[in-house]
Amino acid sequence: MLLRVPLRLGRFYTSLEYPAIRIRDYSKYVSLKSVQDLRLATSPDFVTSANSKLQSLIWQKPMQNVFITKKPWTETTRSSMVHFISYLHDSFPEINVIVQPDVADEIAQDFRSTPRQDPHQPHILYTGTDEEIVSRTDLLVTLGGDGTILRAVSIFGNRQVPPVLAFSLGTLGFLLPFDYQEHRRVFEKVISSRAKCLHRTRLECHIIRNGQSEDCSLATSLHAMNDLFLHRGNSPHLANLDIFIDGDFLTRTSADGVAFSTPTGSTAYSLSAGGSIVSPLVPSILLTPICPRSLSFRPLILPHSSHIRVRVGSKATQGPANAMVKLSVDGIPQEDLRIGDEIHVVNEVGTIYLNGSQLPSTSNKRQVSERRKSIKNSGIYCIAKTENDWTRGLNELLGFNSSFRLTKPQKEEELERDLTD
Amino acid sequence: MLLRVPLRLGRFYTSLEYPAIRIRDYSKYVSLKSVQDLRLATSPDFVTSANSKLQSLIWQKPMQNVFITKKPWTETTRSSMVHFISYLHDSFPEINVIVQPDVADEIAQDFRSTPRQDPHQPHILYTGTDEEIVSRTDLLVTLGGDGTILRAVSIFGNRQVPPVLAFSLGTLGFLLPFDYQEHRRVFEKVISSRAKCLHRTRLECHIIRNGQSEDCSLATSLHAMNDLFLHRGNSPHLANLDIFIDGDFLTRTSADGVAFSTPTGSTAYSLSAGGSIVSPLVPSILLTPICPRSLSFRPLILPHSSHIRVRVGSKATQGPANAMVKLSVDGIPQEDLRIGDEIHVVNEVGTIYLNGSQLPSTSNKRQVSERRKSIKNSGIYCIAKTENDWTRGLNELLGFNSSFRLTKPQKEEELERDLTD
Amino acid sequence: MLLRVPLRLGRFYTSLEYPAIRIRDYSKYVSLKSVQDLRLATSPDFVTSANSKLQSLIWQKPMQNVFITKKPWTETTRSSMVHFISYLHDSFPEINVIVQPDVADEIAQDFRSTPRQDPHQPHILYTGTDEEIVSRTDLLVTLGGDGTILRAVSIFGNRQVPPVLAFSLGTLGFLLPFDYQEHRRVFEKVISSRAKCLHRTRLECHIIRNGQSEDCSLATSLHAMNDLFLHRGNSPHLANLDIFIDGDFLTRTSADGVAFSTPTGSTAYSLSAGGSIVSPLVPSILLTPICPRSLSFRPLILPHSSHIRVRVGSKATQGPANAMVKLSVDGIPQEDLRIGDEIHVVNEVGTIYLNGSQLPSTSNKRQVSERRKSIKNSGIYCIAKTENDWTRGLNELLGFNSSFRLTKPQKEEELERDLTD
Amino acid sequence: MLLRVPLRLGRFYTSLEYPAIRIRDYSKYVSLKSVQDLRLATSPDFVTSANSKLQSLIWQKPMQNVFITKKPWTETTRSSMVHFISYLHDSFPEINVIVQPDVADEIAQDFRSTPRQDPHQPHILYTGTDEEIVSRTDLLVTLGGDGTILRAVSIFGNRQVPPVLAFSLGTLGFLLPFDYQEHRRVFEKVISSRAKCLHRTRLECHIIRNGQSEDCSLATSLHAMNDLFLHRGNSPHLANLDIFIDGDFLTRTSADGVAFSTPTGSTAYSLSAGGSIVSPLVPSILLTPICPRSLSFRPLILPHSSHIRVRVGSKATQGPANAMVKLSVDGIPQEDLRIGDEIHVVNEVGTIYLNGSQLPSTSNKRQVSERRKSIKNSGIYCIAKTENDWTRGLNELLGFNSSFRLTKPQKEEELERDLTD
Ligand SMILES: NC(=O)C1=CN([C@@H]2O[C@H](COP(=O)(O)OP(=O)(O)OC[C@H]3O[C@@H](n4cnc5c(N)ncnc54)[C@H](O)[C@@H]3O)[C@@H](O)[C@H]2O)C=CC1
Ligand SMILES: NC(=O)C1=CN([C@@H]2O[C@H](COP(=O)(O)OP(=O)(O)OC[C@H]3O[C@@H](n4cnc5c(N)ncnc54)[C@H](O)[C@@H]3O)[C@@H](O)[C@H]2O)C=CC1
Ligand SMILES: NC(=O)C1=CN([C@@H]2O[C@H](COP(=O)(O)OP(=O)(O)OC[C@H]3O[C@@H](n4cnc5c(N)ncnc54)[C@H](O)[C@@H]3O)[C@@H](O)[C@H]2O)C=CC1
Ligand SMILES: NC(=O)C1=CN([C@@H]2O[C@H](COP(=O)(O)OP(=O)(O)OC[C@H]3O[C@@H](n4cnc5c(N)ncnc54)[C@H](O)[C@@H]3O)[C@@H](O)[C@H]2O)C=CC1
Repeated sequence: MLLRVPLRLGRFYTSLEYPAIRIRDYSKYVSLKSVQDLRLATSPDFVTSANSKLQSLIWQKPMQNVFITKKPWTETTRSSMVHFISYLHDSFPEINVIVQPDVADEIAQDFRSTPRQDPHQPHILYTGTDEEIVSRTDLLVTLGGDGTILRAVSIFGNRQVPPVLAFSLGTLGFLLPFDYQEHRRVFEKVISSRAKCLHRTRLECHIIRNGQSEDCSLATSLHAMNDLFLHRGNSPHLANLDIFIDGDFLTRTSADGVAFSTPTGSTAYSLSAGGSIVSPLVPSILLTPICPRSLSFRPLILPHSSHIRVRVGSKATQGPANAMVKLSVDGIPQEDLRIGDEIHVVNEVGTIYLNGSQLPSTSNKRQVSERRKSIKNSGIYCIAKTENDWTRGLNELLGFNSSFRLTKPQKEEELERDLTD
Repeated sequence: MLLRVPLRLGRFYTSLEYPAIRIRDYSKYVSLKSVQDLRLATSPDFVTSANSKLQSLIWQKPMQNVFITKKPWTETTRSSMVHFISYLHDSFPEINVIVQPDVADEIAQDFRSTPRQDPHQPHILYTGTDEEIVSRTDLLVTLGGDGTILRAVSIFGNRQVPPVLAFSLGTLGFLLPFDYQEHRRVFEKVISSRAKCLHRTRLECHIIRNGQSEDCSLATSLHAMNDLFLHRGNSPHLANLDIFIDGDFLTRTSADGVAFSTPTGSTAYSLSAGGSIVSPLVPSILLTPICPRSLSFRPLILPHSSHIRVRVGSKATQGPANAMVKLSVDGIPQEDLRIGDEIHVVNEVGTIYLNGSQLPSTSNKRQVSERRKSIKNSGIYCIAKTENDWTRGLNELLGFNSSFRLTKPQKEEELERDLTD
Repeated sequence: MLLRVPLRLGRFYTSLEYPAIRIRDYSKYVSLKSVQDLRLATSPDFVTSANSKLQSLIWQKPMQNVFITKKPWTETTRSSMVHFISYLHDSFPEINVIVQPDVADEIAQDFRSTPRQDPHQPHILYTGTDEEIVSRTDLLVTLGGDGTILRAVSIFGNRQVPPVLAFSLGTLGFLLPFDYQEHRRVFEKVISSRAKCLHRTRLECHIIRNGQSEDCSLATSLHAMNDLFLHRGNSPHLANLDIFIDGDFLTRTSADGVAFSTPTGSTAYSLSAGGSIVSPLVPSILLTPICPRSLSFRPLILPHSSHIRVRVGSKATQGPANAMVKLSVDGIPQEDLRIGDEIHVVNEVGTIYLNGSQLPSTSNKRQVSERRKSIKNSGIYCIAKTENDWTRGLNELLGFNSSFRLTKPQKEEELERDLTD
Repeated sequence: MLLRVPLRLGRFYTSLEYPAIRIRDYSKYVSLKSVQDLRLATSPDFVTSANSKLQSLIWQKPMQNVFITKKPWTETTRSSMVHFISYLHDSFPEINVIVQPDVADEIAQDFRSTPRQDPHQPHILYTGTDEEIVSRTDLLVTLGGDGTILRAVSIFGNRQVPPVLAFSLGTLGFLLPFDYQEHRRVFEKVISSRAKCLHRTRLECHIIRNGQSEDCSLATSLHAMNDLFLHRGNSPHLANLDIFIDGDFLTRTSADGVAFSTPTGSTAYSLSAGGSIVSPLVPSILLTPICPRSLSFRPLILPHSSHIRVRVGSKATQGPANAMVKLSVDGIPQEDLRIGDEIHVVNEVGTIYLNGSQLPSTSNKRQVSERRKSIKNSGIYCIAKTENDWTRGLNELLGFNSSFRLTKPQKEEELERDLTD
């Protein structure tokens, strides 16, 4: 089958020349196939067990299609990816490896040095459009840091995200990836339904343009794993934002901006802006002002079911300079907002709409009921190391409560001794 | 029946002389009866309704026994209490009014000026020990501020707290009481099952003395509506506290202390110490350090199901001065802690105990299962005004995000206009 | 004399047509003259008096040349300006009024309604280039808010700023302007050497381009009354900045940016970013991080004599996206900085250069000695209302320490009584 | 001469038995003499040099009398003290070593193991009352941590403090002591007028009892190197404090308390309570609230010349529980304050008294003029290591701006390279 990958921005080949020219060179080691040849994605069950804050990941149908992404442009991740794919092909012949076309292109030649055990069998890589990949992926594997996870998850946009298995390479990450060294042990656990997951929630954001009809279906809808924020960006002038919660006016703020974060994102921008650290197990939405012109805008932790509306306001005297506010989702810049534009922020599921606070795009009854159905599949299940990854991460990654070095540091064992003698 | 109220500290009469001497003077207007004459307490149902963050309060059996408490030593609350009791007696003859003995004593003479409509019928007040009152109360009414609510609820200790109807007198409160002016309208709603409640969670604290056997049942157990905190108090030396979460070591802190708060308490001490404001609808436990010797002890929002253990530590060089740490629950001082003593903090229900993190006093299987049974009755249901009391409270009570007065203040209506023209 | 005003950006007339065409229409009421016809500026003495934190403003030669600026595009300030000029012309014939050409243009027609008392004498307005105006101004009067003062002062760039008399119109300002209502009383005090001044310091900033020779005289030098800050602006990526103090490495920060403020600017951006409030009488430079990726970057108050160097750094992996950092001075955007570019921040005077920390552009000995000479004339003398404007401003403008509205507010008089009875 | 040391609290010997009995045992190695045998203290000059933020310490008359204090009850400091005294006696026969009587007693027996080189000459230790010691001390040497310095300096109370040479033993300290390892090199620099000093300012605190006559000379006056603070201590109720600056009402606060700190103390309690870090070279007084009931009580940096008055207030309803507020100076508890009591806080010198803000005890003209005379001798000169001890201390001791460990840490050298390639 001849593979047709549409031209994507920033790619250096066209869909035509791609399979024809580039891949031929490596065809002895690598063979590209269409991801559409694979069966549709299967979802595992996530089982809550007693005495655990995590969910067990149980495959009812065997896991087959593994989509692997990586941090771009670094040598280490590229060679680890090739190494990981070789490992999968050699150890789990039933597993199909999916990559994005540009990644296929980037790594293809590297397989020369790691041919399959049976040298007549090339490495098979499945690829296709993001849309096609999304519909086929059983498991998402990322190689890189926090940004790589965020980017990979964002490919799934508003659809269900498969379980995420994240590996880091040298660096550490607050989304708590495994060290790549452990890839064998961990992957075996995942495929054999012995892994456990931490459930992370996502935020959903709808942009409503000024004057847009309320039931307009054109509203852009975005998903955030960390956060979404409005910011003045390059504008020398403060952003003026009116914030409403569940239909009630909360406050008008003049500020650099405002961030809405998931608990996962509490250690990202929100932390820098002064927010508290929130465990991913606390269902909530964080509202953290970014450099507000006020002494009394303390960060808020809102119910998971909140419906937040933010409207870009103006000060009469500031003129058009204030017209632009930047919107970012998980650090990725989105369309700019103008005076009168609004965003609605809700959790991916479960919002209780009070009188007068319906989400424009969900006034459609059918959508709402579909939304309800999908509750169990929402959020992101991340393969976890231990029950207490989060507590460890606080100490090891954030340097949480590091004490002043006025006295020599004490280890926990010493603390124990301290009390027993 | 002759009433025997045991002698309580700070009371100026003994159980003997009490009914005999003092009350006789007012007997024309007031008659005291034993609360044990009343039927046992009945619990209403709390029904979750669509499109609401609140629960409807539905009485299956008619509400009868109303326990009324008040802020001590103020003229206004005393006369409001007398006024409220007269209103109840006149309008709802089926309602039984319960008060604490010292309150009975304090207000008795005031009824002279508000006799019952039928002057031959004295006002009947039921009273008894706290224990007896607790077992009979269907509804708790408080007259005063936040402190009055906290005190009244603490009378119920570890048992189920009845729905709370709070009235304020002149002052405001962040636990969002009704203005006493509205007492008729509100009480009628409550008695006729037309009121709605906000559910507030409580924290549970167990004190384990150094060296105490683990399964010891002597452990003191306390409940907090706002918070519980450890503090150096008068000691000039910092408290050294080792904090563990779900069995994992989190951190050792040298600080004035540390506060553990419910979302309700997020606007109490935790706020003063720099914590975020948390909606009561976010199930969580706040860990807020109080003046820690660290640049990096950011407040934490922990899962509602966390099991937190704090051990009083020592620095070799500080000697015995450090030996004492004060424990307070909802602002009420408790026994002091010494080096090696521990507290365990959990939510009133639903904690997941991980390996090695069992609560000493619940290692007993039977207790655990009893605990599970009571889940639905835990926490405190507070009669609410509107869905958005909390948002309003932020603005009206805390002066949340008050803008600098460099420009003339704008009203919300003006904000609206701002955008439409 | 025919006035030649060079074309300025955003002006709608050229120097040619300007005096010829536009002014003719109003010539009966207004006559434009060249500011070069006026004598050079004279500086008053600033005398420290016992029992006062302020300096007395004493004119040795009579004050004559008053430069008036205003907030652009608002009706109220325009008419107040016309009113104020008329007042000056009528009451103080010896005073010469200076305005910028575009302002002359904007207000000229308004004098129709306020002709001089002697209708044959038109209002004379002196104007010219900024350079020319600066060299002639004895007193700077501003009509508008904080921004108007900042803009007006920035016209004086690196030269000495004359005493500033600021009036506000309706709105308030934290730079503590007088209400325009008081203009007569205040101006009379100023002209008769009976006014007192608050001395505000300024920051000086030098931009050194990557690779620029050290003793290069091309370095841009800027002055800030509030602050100067580096910021990521529109870039989704954090700014990486290496900060050195007096030649010593302080820290590398990944952040939205960093602000360097005068005490005056402590209530501007620095406050929003979490900085302390610093009295203008405390000689110091504030270093306040803007949303840093760190739990432990507490704002710093550095000595007035500090020499701060900031270098734009890079993270290998972030690529060119990080290349740009925005520099703003008093909120006015400046040239962008790239990797390797540096800024040096010093106080306007008096920096102590330690070994290896010389300011590139001052390695020239002559410059240094000139700099030393000018010490007494540095900073900005602002006409003050009372000794305690600042304390009042905290309360009235910033809503400093506004208490929770749980109890009824108490006035100071009540506090007094509180203690006496 | 027979030495008479008055009985001091916590000492286990009386002045009588002391020289007679205890010292006899060690008389071969140690001989105690009265500090009154020594000449009165001599003050060095502190010379400001160009290109330096420090002052050179120049002895006009040779330094002779060295008062040595140490941290109590630790083995290491005791043996270091003995070692240091032996070093002085052997290398600088002209130096007289002064210690407090209890210290003499504590260390006397230890000299057995370090006899003088000439075994016939015992070690001579001068001792006496604090008063006597203070009047004779040329140089103060401390062995221990920050607390030891604070305690030693407090012995000098309101009199001039001699230059301080601080050594630490193993632990570090933020008052930047030298490592004891360096004692030879450093002491030689000090004695030969080659050392440099950092000048630290002190705060002065006057307690005025409620109702005390204003010009009463009974007012207690205290000095603080770090800070002085008012705190609720064990009281469950908030402290209510009315704060006035230069006679103007600033604010009433309900809080745990409030701290007034020198820049030196900015890294002590003030830091824990959220204050900024202030360089010791910034002349100022820090006002930092401790857990205030307000969202908008930002820490203040007040002018060095401020006159701050704090009055203990009451809330009508709180009753006597609120009556007590604890006052601490440099962490040492002082007398409790009651409702209506006041403290006045000023810098050790140079306060400008505005109308109506005189310090009660200085209304006496003579006192004021004496005060003025002593300006040059005020504050504390601490022997410094380098110009940039402070910057280094931030990084090494406080872990200032420690970056998240998501990427491997970079050293400064690497940063350099970063930019050059
Ligand atoms: N001043 C700040 O702190 C800013 C932070 N951001 C954050 O960056 C995020 C995007 O991350 P990247 O694409 O990697 O951008 P990036 O390459 O600019 O790096 C942001 C940093 O944040 C870390 N990070 C990301 N998610 C995190 C989390 N949940 N907890 C702790 N650390 C986290 C990353 O490891 C990286 O060190 C956004 O979601 C936003 O939260 C974005 C702009 C400014
Ligand atoms: N520095 C501080 O902020 C301190 C605060 N507290 C708090 O006081 C509480 C006990 O309150 P009271 O018995 O009334 O003591 P109290 O009479 O000392 O008053 C404490 C203040 O906190 C307010 N308050 C109480 N609960 C609140 C809540 N949930 N949200 C907002 N404000 C609240 C009260 O209205 C009162 O103004 C404790 O639970 C503790 O949280 C206790 C000690 C110090
Ligand atoms: N997030 C923030 O707080 C930001 C603040 N700024 C500040 O804005 C200043 C420029 O002011 P404008 O030209 O008026 O810009 P602007 O029109 O954007 O207004 C900034 C606000 O800050 C106020 N302000 C200015 N100087 C002040 C001071 N010294 N103390 C207290 N408030 C002050 C102004 O009255 C105005 O309300 C800059 O120097 C910078 O400090 C600039 C960008 C963001
Ligand atoms: N929650 C807190 O942070 C509290 C702090 N303190 C501070 O303790 C000081 C007294 O110190 P100690 O007698 O040693 O008491 P301490 O033995 O209780 O120790 C206080 C800690 O503060 C450190 N410290 C002292 N002065 C410092 C400074 N200027 N900068 C940085 N760290 C400093 C000490 O090294 C020690 O680690 C007081 O002046 C007060 O500032 C006192 C009470 C509570």
